[in-house]
Amino acid sequence: MNSIYIYLAAASGILALIFAFILASGISKQSAGNDRMKEISGYIHEGAMAFLNREYRYLAVFVVIVGVIIAAFIGWETAICFVVGAIFSILAGYFGMIVATKANVRTAEAARHGQSQALKIAFSGGAVMGMSVVGLGILGLSILFLIFDGNPTYLTGFGLGASSIALFARVGGGIYTKAADVGADLVGKVEAGIPEDDPRNPAVIADNVGDNVGDVAGMGADLFESYVGSIISAITLGAALFPKGQGVLYPIILVSIGIVASIIGAGIARNSKNSNPQKALNTGTYIGGILVIICSAVLSKSVFGNFKAFFAVAAGLVVGMLIGKITEVYTSSDYKSVKVISDQSQTGPATTIISGLAVGMKSTMWPIILIVIGILVSYFVMGGASNATMGLYGIALSAVGMLSITGLTVAVDAYGPIADNAGGIAEMAHLPASVREITDKLDSVGNTTAAIGKGFAIGSAALTALALFASYAQAVNLSTIDLLNPATLAGILIGGMLPFLFGALTMESVGKAANEMVEEVRRQFKEIPGIMEEETKPDYARCVEISTAAALKEMILPGILAIAIPIAVGILLGAEALGGLIGGSVVTGVLVAILMANAGGAWDNAKKYIESGVHGGKGSYAHKAAVVGDTVGDPFKDTSGPSMNILIKLMTIVSLVFAPVILKYGGVLLNLFK
Amino acid sequence: MNSIYIYLAAASGILALIFAFILASGISKQSAGNDRMKEISGYIHEGAMAFLNREYRYLAVFVVIVGVIIAAFIGWETAICFVVGAIFSILAGYFGMIVATKANVRTAEAARHGQSQALKIAFSGGAVMGMSVVGLGILGLSILFLIFDGNPTYLTGFGLGASSIALFARVGGGIYTKAADVGADLVGKVEAGIPEDDPRNPAVIADNVGDNVGDVAGMGADLFESYVGSIISAITLGAALFPKGQGVLYPIILVSIGIVASIIGAGIARNSKNSNPQKALNTGTYIGGILVIICSAVLSKSVFGNFKAFFAVAAGLVVGMLIGKITEVYTSSDYKSVKVISDQSQTGPATTIISGLAVGMKSTMWPIILIVIGILVSYFVMGGASNATMGLYGIALSAVGMLSITGLTVAVDAYGPIADNAGGIAEMAHLPASVREITDKLDSVGNTTAAIGKGFAIGSAALTALALFASYAQAVNLSTIDLLNPATLAGILIGGMLPFLFGALTMESVGKAANEMVEEVRRQFKEIPGIMEEETKPDYARCVEISTAAALKEMILPGILAIAIPIAVGILLGAEALGGLIGGSVVTGVLVAILMANAGGAWDNAKKYIESGVHGGKGSYAHKAAVVGDTVGDPFKDTSGPSMNILIKLMTIVSLVFAPVILKYGGVLLNLFK
Repeated sequence: MNSIYIYLAAASGILALIFAFILASGISKQSAGNDRMKEISGYIHEGAMAFLNREYRYLAVFVVIVGVIIAAFIGWETAICFVVGAIFSILAGYFGMIVATKANVRTAEAARHGQSQALKIAFSGGAVMGMSVVGLGILGLSILFLIFDGNPTYLTGFGLGASSIALFARVGGGIYTKAADVGADLVGKVEAGIPEDDPRNPAVIADNVGDNVGDVAGMGADLFESYVGSIISAITLGAALFPKGQGVLYPIILVSIGIVASIIGAGIARNSKNSNPQKALNTGTYIGGILVIICSAVLSKSVFGNFKAFFAVAAGLVVGMLIGKITEVYTSSDYKSVKVISDQSQTGPATTIISGLAVGMKSTMWPIILIVIGILVSYFVMGGASNATMGLYGIALSAVGMLSITGLTVAVDAYGPIADNAGGIAEMAHLPASVREITDKLDSVGNTTAAIGKGFAIGSAALTALALFASYAQAVNLSTIDLLNPATLAGILIGGMLPFLFGALTMESVGKAANEMVEEVRRQFKEIPGIMEEETKPDYARCVEISTAAALKEMILPGILAIAIPIAVGILLGAEALGGLIGGSVVTGVLVAILMANAGGAWDNAKKYIESGVHGGKGSYAHKAAVVGDTVGDPFKDTSGPSMNILIKLMTIVSLVFAPVILKYGGVLLNLFK
Repeated sequence: MNSIYIYLAAASGILALIFAFILASGISKQSAGNDRMKEISGYIHEGAMAFLNREYRYLAVFVVIVGVIIAAFIGWETAICFVVGAIFSILAGYFGMIVATKANVRTAEAARHGQSQALKIAFSGGAVMGMSVVGLGILGLSILFLIFDGNPTYLTGFGLGASSIALFARVGGGIYTKAADVGADLVGKVEAGIPEDDPRNPAVIADNVGDNVGDVAGMGADLFESYVGSIISAITLGAALFPKGQGVLYPIILVSIGIVASIIGAGIARNSKNSNPQKALNTGTYIGGILVIICSAVLSKSVFGNFKAFFAVAAGLVVGMLIGKITEVYTSSDYKSVKVISDQSQTGPATTIISGLAVGMKSTMWPIILIVIGILVSYFVMGGASNATMGLYGIALSAVGMLSITGLTVAVDAYGPIADNAGGIAEMAHLPASVREITDKLDSVGNTTAAIGKGFAIGSAALTALALFASYAQAVNLSTIDLLNPATLAGILIGGMLPFLFGALTMESVGKAANEMVEEVRRQFKEIPGIMEEETKPDYARCVEISTAAALKEMILPGILAIAIPIAVGILLGAEALGGLIGGSVVTGVLVAILMANAGGAWDNAKKYIESGVHGGKGSYAHKAAVVGDTVGDPFKDTSGPSMNILIKLMTIVSLVFAPVILKYGGVLLNLFK
């Protein structure tokens, strides 16, 4: 196979990393403000690094164990790819976090000089995460592709490595951030009556660290996984379909184009002088997307001689953007749903909860319909009514299309927590109100971009999982996965149940971890004299430590379940049942993820809407009810909801990697009846 | 075909109706208490009849329209069966309601003379509903079977008729009861500060009517549908498999045995002198179940010459009972989950909600595993690894097995609202505290039986839907429903989403209807002088009217969706996509139903647990938080949750009835790519 274009892909990865490096050095050169600011940002940086280092120790053990299992049952090549995938995902998170914890304080300092300067730094910080994700993703894949001559079985190991890290980063990070957040709020705001981001609150640093851990590193790892997963699926299916290599060429060039388009889009957003930061970010994203769509048409014609592949790619990209837009409609106070929830807050917390849940449940409709349209268009345009494998390749291309601008969407998404952190630092360092005003505005835009980013992450997880699902079916030689087979039905029921179980476990974990935090903060207020008078500093590190330990401990059970259950079901009930399990988990996982993300986002903004002066404003009966909604929404949108993306992708890729084992030993229980 | 056993089935149906008649006359002969009690029960009876009459007017229009459509597209025979099914379901609900609204006041009066006397009347009242359901169900089916010589296509019309009534009764009834309940509580208890069931509350009669409408008629119609649906599926599949008729004979005799066993079990429960009412009811149920299991073994050996059918039946029955037991574990304060929720109430409403949702989500695991075991055992024992149709027949038999004691489970379930009503009447008529004590005890047992009954209803709905699903596949000539086909995938995603949409719509409906009720109660307190001093009577009828109108209006949209979407998807995307839609909706429908039923039940009992004196008891901070949980749980467990059963069965049977249309016109959208 002519592998010249793999070098091109590697080059585009390196280009992304160079761009990231330039952005990072640019950020470093900015002033980090006064000593107080440096001190605070130092704490956050240290806390974030403490979490990462601890996490990496856990990860090292995990990667070694799973690597040995893979080497023993599947082969050493897959094990190597697995380890490389894990390391590259870790590196992306590491770069992103280092720069994010530098950019936050510099954003606060820049906000002294105006909004556009602050936006530039915050967005640049996010862009480092985005470019690291796509750069390391495509570089890692290219290198392994060259070494192992594109062997699909080996490459899936890379996906599994990425998936495993995403589990730790997204689930652990989600537990971390909400334990710290709830703990800080419950004792600080409610019991001690001090404002948010007050330096006297012992959990305040952990809370700010949490924003980075969950929303920068966690989200980055999630999309790293989707990104490489969709590419692996497309090149795996494509290699089998086109002996001359066009099937691999097309997606590889497409992602290279996507990287260039993302760099252009990021440049536009970063240097925008638009006074509305939301518009600046949107313009950049849309331009990036349109560039990809145009190029994919030209590419489709020149590689395949027709526009079929272009339609598949465009379908994915448009669906991804529309899902983001719909998320905004359900979670922004500019639209009806959030207003309904805030109206219902007037009759108390119960009606707030009911209406928020109803909004979340209802909000699943359009994203599902869009995903369905995306699937049908990409499948049937590419494969027609008769060529199934070609159709599945179309679905994989549409996932690649949606994810081609990952660099840009991660940048926009990771910008949020940086702006949020900047606000926290401004508050803690007692910077002038005008600074806080700017950071608040940037932060509020960040909330919307976070919601949109979540919608995008869910949509891409669904398409990636479905694309990998097609690869799985091929790997275990299934030409059908029949719903009328009771084993498949059993698999679907079990798979459908798992997101519910996973959601319950992660919500309980947040509860437990938050309780520990509450007790620690109470203890410090009681035992350390002078905290309230700002004479003594609270023990920030202890709170960081608690969040870190709880996050890592609490994710072990859900993690083991996500890996062990697919293998167990495959071995007991066979490959077809495992196919059913994947299908069932994708369906309910996507639904629960959308429900949780949108209900959580809507409650959050209903509270903020009331705080803006509606229904009696802050402190009113309606506001208290809205706070209850927001608190319920916290683990929904930041822990359990995003965990669903990981769950469905991880279970799919575990099945794919362990396909040889399932093929050999699968169905021992059913064989009893033969 | 030798149809002598059909006469036997008809005879068993008549036997059940005779038993119901004897019980009903026995109840009528009891004293209805003093004038005040008679007056109050008169209001409840009138309110219930007002709702039924109004509902029947709507139904008449609905039945005529759908009947004409069926006659035009499918055939007049199916249309006749549809109308008969609707009428028989209506009759069952009518009988049950009339007797329940007589039994309530007589239970209150009997409670003056002791608990066992009161239990006897309340349970007898429930048993009339139970026996009417099974008696009319099997009688109607038998008559149509004889007329149309067992033609399966026609008989499914009977199932669709039952299903349509269940939609009105369960969804409309669910909206009715919660609108009245929430309306009565919000203004009465919270704003006016008067106790529950106070005659000064204008919505109090509507609230008591709601118990009958939702929990007697609604639940009865739900199980009527499951009962006839499972029988139709078993005889349809069985007729094709066994040319000599054993495949029809077995399930028909089995349900006849089930009726006799239910009568025996009901007799035992009714005459029990056990001081613990729960034990009396359990003993009756277990004896009924064991009788069926023993007889089914003998029957299996004599009809088929082996014990295979017995294993399928026993699997269904045992799974049904275990699901009930698990429901109890998650929703009774004797176990851990409810205690955890009440502990979490100490930190406020948000943690109450989160922990309750986590309990609900976690509680899906065991029921799903049990259903999976039931499916696998009944399929593989009956059909082995190679005979798919025989295996599906096994699943249908297991549904019939689970539902064979429907007469008994409905009796136990419908006993609850009668006891609840009795308590309300005792309170309103100012009966001595000792009476209220007895009715409270009976009521609290009723809460547990209601939760168990809900678990049973969900399990049976799932198995019935899956059995009908198998019939559907046969009807549209599908030998596989392939998950790798994107149309199937599209169907599963849409089908999976519908329970979320349906849940959102019904929750919003309760909210809207409750708001109307709140305004009316407020208006009456303001505009009618002397209510508070008990000098003037409030306008009960107006509140009954509001609940009635709202319930019927609000169920139109969900009802249309449940019928139109399967047909639309079938016509646009084809029979296989529709198969996917049914599969997807069963999976998420069952999950959401379990989540909602158990979270709702657990919140309810966590509140009651705190009221028993834990965490500060009534009026404490924890209690207020628990009340929020209970209020959120109300539409969960009594409206949206139970609606899922209807949704999944109705969509399945609509697909089955309209199979000829789908077969002829299905897939117009996909044909574009051919």
